[in-house]
Amino acid sequence: MTAPRPLLPHLRTRLPLLGGSDRKIAEVVLRQPQDVVFWSVRELADAAGTAKSSVVRFCQGSGLRGFHDLKLILAQETALARESDPLAHDPAGDVLGAVVRAGAETLRDAAATVQRSAFDATAGLLARADAVLVVGGGGSGPLAQDAAQRLRVIGVRAAAPADAPGQHVAAALLSRGDACLAISHRGATAGTLEAVAAAADAGAATAAITSFAGSPLTGLADHVLVAGARAASPRLAALTSRLAHVAVLDALLVAVALRDERRAAAALARADAALAAHRR
Amino acid sequence: MTAPRPLLPHLRTRLPLLGGSDRKIAEVVLRQPQDVVFWSVRELADAAGTAKSSVVRFCQGSGLRGFHDLKLILAQETALARESDPLAHDPAGDVLGAVVRAGAETLRDAAATVQRSAFDATAGLLARADAVLVVGGGGSGPLAQDAAQRLRVIGVRAAAPADAPGQHVAAALLSRGDACLAISHRGATAGTLEAVAAAADAGAATAAITSFAGSPLTGLADHVLVAGARAASPRLAALTSRLAHVAVLDALLVAVALRDERRAAAALARADAALAAHRR
Repeated sequence: MTAPRPLLPHLRTRLPLLGGSDRKIAEVVLRQPQDVVFWSVRELADAAGTAKSSVVRFCQGSGLRGFHDLKLILAQETALARESDPLAHDPAGDVLGAVVRAGAETLRDAAATVQRSAFDATAGLLARADAVLVVGGGGSGPLAQDAAQRLRVIGVRAAAPADAPGQHVAAALLSRGDACLAISHRGATAGTLEAVAAAADAGAATAAITSFAGSPLTGLADHVLVAGARAASPRLAALTSRLAHVAVLDALLVAVALRDERRAAAALARADAALAAHRR
Repeated sequence: MTAPRPLLPHLRTRLPLLGGSDRKIAEVVLRQPQDVVFWSVRELADAAGTAKSSVVRFCQGSGLRGFHDLKLILAQETALARESDPLAHDPAGDVLGAVVRAGAETLRDAAATVQRSAFDATAGLLARADAVLVVGGGGSGPLAQDAAQRLRVIGVRAAAPADAPGQHVAAALLSRGDACLAISHRGATAGTLEAVAAAADAGAATAAITSFAGSPLTGLADHVLVAGARAASPRLAALTSRLAHVAVLDALLVAVALRDERRAAAALARADAALAAHRR
């Protein structure tokens, strides 16, 4: 086994899956990666409140040969990421530039943490489905609306009822051959889980875009795309996950369109003609 | 006058403002920047169907000393952008990676094309407003919903009626001290223009996020944030503008939150407590 690279985004998305001393060590590593670069095994063990042997096991469990490799990887990744959190140093300065740089970092992470096999399976599912139901609540609600509208524009029959009861009903009425795509930052929104469970009961295939592995949602959906756990600056935490989800949706749309380019082109032309009537 | 750098994104956003031979030359430059690097003045003039003197005037009008400088800048910018359109070479390959790389490019452009003065003015407007109305139609509709929800979560009273008549009515009922934020890719959606005009008539301040300079919308709004005109690959064209708009909205939210951190923190805490009731 070798360590997934970049390591920090993987560690972030897998945090909910870790228990005991692994979790404590991962939390310290994620909180102070720049510091850990200069620490001894003992110092990391102390900071995490664990034994030195736990640190060694943590490194091996992460696919590394040992603590020295962890420090090397952290040195590389923190050097790359150093530019991404200038808000902390320059709160009144170039907010636009800072947020946009953090966004670009987030996208790089998204490409690293989404499993290609789950991505391909989800794209195939959406391309083949007779109908697609997109569900999401709270902050993910507008993203679900957006995804459904953009799927329609490339020729996929998609809908996204705005409210949880409406989503639940629509999910219960799906059939084999249909698909349900859920979007959820934490993967724990009750209404979204209810809809995915109802979709599965109805025989539909299910997929999810979410920020963390190991949530109730990841246990429920057939295919799970994990992206967006990065939160370089606490001030940017609420923003970065949605940008990653938008980018993953963008990529899914391109992948679905490429699977039937003629259908996508025909739908785009009809959508464009309809929109033209609303332009001045 | 010196040329804005990077040049290509600026050229893209200003395209609708250009007339006659300038427009024809700009279209060729934007369509085949890699080729123009190796062309003579004569070849560019022929490709655009203009005179050689028009090419020279175009370069000077772009803030360059001449054609040679244009070729140098295009060589730099196309080298940087080369990675961003691998879909053209690898249609069945790494769609996720390709879209995400194109997205990161788009964000870099967004930071370059948005005027800092307009950004600061818009952030100030949203932070101070008694109430904010967000409007947008078609593909920008869900973005408007999203923006309003996220403004509410940081303590700004914001609303985004989903339909054009509802947006028009809400705009007409605004007062001095209120603000209207419009989102529109082309800046020509009739319902959106109607709402912005009604908001201005009602005495509210207006701002817009859009992909092109020189649209009806940019003529109407007090402050205009232009980002997202990049379309490296035609296949990605429909996607990149919305990612830029999401990133600009992200940056606006951070800027608004930073102007009243206590209000933002209090609202976030209340929103989080409400959301917690819907989590499993």
